[in-house]
Amino acid sequence: MEVETLIGSSKILKYWASLLIGLVLFFSIKYFIKNPKRKPQKKYTLDNEEDIEVEETDELQPALEEKPHLPFVAGINLNPNGAERFYRLVQGRRSIRSFRSQSIPDLSIIEDCIRAAGTAPSGAHTEPWTFCVVENSEVKQSIREIVEQEELMNYSQRMHPQWVTDLRPLQTNHIKEYLTVAPYLILIFKQTYGLSPDGRRKRHYYNEISTSIAGGILLCALQAAGLASLVTTPLNCGPALRTLLQRPVNEKLLILLAVGYPAEDCKVPDLQRKELSKIMVKY
Amino acid sequence: MEVETLIGSSKILKYWASLLIGLVLFFSIKYFIKNPKRKPQKKYTLDNEEDIEVEETDELQPALEEKPHLPFVAGINLNPNGAERFYRLVQGRRSIRSFRSQSIPDLSIIEDCIRAAGTAPSGAHTEPWTFCVVENSEVKQSIREIVEQEELMNYSQRMHPQWVTDLRPLQTNHIKEYLTVAPYLILIFKQTYGLSPDGRRKRHYYNEISTSIAGGILLCALQAAGLASLVTTPLNCGPALRTLLQRPVNEKLLILLAVGYPAEDCKVPDLQRKELSKIMVKY
Repeated sequence: MEVETLIGSSKILKYWASLLIGLVLFFSIKYFIKNPKRKPQKKYTLDNEEDIEVEETDELQPALEEKPHLPFVAGINLNPNGAERFYRLVQGRRSIRSFRSQSIPDLSIIEDCIRAAGTAPSGAHTEPWTFCVVENSEVKQSIREIVEQEELMNYSQRMHPQWVTDLRPLQTNHIKEYLTVAPYLILIFKQTYGLSPDGRRKRHYYNEISTSIAGGILLCALQAAGLASLVTTPLNCGPALRTLLQRPVNEKLLILLAVGYPAEDCKVPDLQRKELSKIMVKY
Repeated sequence: MEVETLIGSSKILKYWASLLIGLVLFFSIKYFIKNPKRKPQKKYTLDNEEDIEVEETDELQPALEEKPHLPFVAGINLNPNGAERFYRLVQGRRSIRSFRSQSIPDLSIIEDCIRAAGTAPSGAHTEPWTFCVVENSEVKQSIREIVEQEELMNYSQRMHPQWVTDLRPLQTNHIKEYLTVAPYLILIFKQTYGLSPDGRRKRHYYNEISTSIAGGILLCALQAAGLASLVTTPLNCGPALRTLLQRPVNEKLLILLAVGYPAEDCKVPDLQRKELSKIMVKY
């Protein structure tokens, strides 16, 4: 009996050992899962940006040259009443889906618009954008095929029913005729990182915000030029379109614009914009 | 001896049991850590957006009213040579850090600029933005204190040394004098979701891209008005600034702009912009 009791207590001790092993396993597994790349001290954070590895060197060099600063020379403006005049210009912009296929704006107009977009500010002046201008019919056809294929899945499977419902007043579906009708498509890629001449990766801080701001300037430029456009962000089409346009892996599609003159019978949704009091708060 | 052997083999068996317990623990822990909210089938995806819960109802209603579409009426433009003229307007824009504190632009100018920004396109016309315009000195002082406190930590601890080095040619540090000197600060918040009159959450598709595009239009408007600005994205300051300005929890700070007229002795970094051939590709 005494021996049996001993074995009994020894059993409990052995189960305690199992428990201990289990606990050690638990915490070590938890540790490794929480830190998949074993980077327990992620010291350098950047909101909303992917963290890229930058090679450490003994002496860090800035991406830009260090030069003395220059006196600021103010540019031109639209005075008098520049703000009001500019508001009247952009308030006439609407997203349209019916373009005139026969009226092709001169490429130099598109180029000036992209020059304007390229004046956008960017994190540490990295200018992390590429504007792909597509005029070629076959390329436009391929883009349309990629987008329609993905959009069919988006509308039927990937998008929440509420989302599809919210789009109903805009009368959109997965058929994107404008992609082959519009004389130009502009695909705006954000560069998630850059490459130095010596092949080292350069960080592109806030590349998505910077490139979107450039997109906003582009829209104003197109409006100033008398051109209409449609801003789209085709869900899940980025990789296929990047491959089609042979863009490098550091570039990711952000915005796809259709650009041209509106068709004669072009219609737009009956939308109102929010009043100033709904979008501005004064302190 | 035979009894001892039996106990020995029983020990091994018991260790096998521990191993089994450990393995079971491993996979169940891994499962729960990988699926913290136990949502294994995330069906509706939206690139780069936080997934918000939308209440399911029997009949889904669109956020916008369903109305017949209207004929498109083209707005004004800057013709002749609209694109070129617009490029000349925005190419004079530079980010400046020295503002004239005594020259305060009329609030109506700022209002027109924000009206212009509010014409930006947005996913399903959700208009997911709020522009907080700060003229009050005490509020500006509080903003500066929050930003400088965070920026000191950003520069010394959070930012990668390469990032700090990349900013050296811009001669920036954690001291942000312009935040109290500039006559206006504009804090642009993105609304990550909206609220219906009945309190239900409305999805705000692509709110970050939409709000950044609005920011780009705002920059053009300010330039058209003859005003200078500085775009910043203060790292980690969002929650404190949101609390200071008493903005609701669905709003997140995206951009902080300082706005005003440049100081007499204002200097800017000696920067060049990329040539068109470096940012545009033709297909």
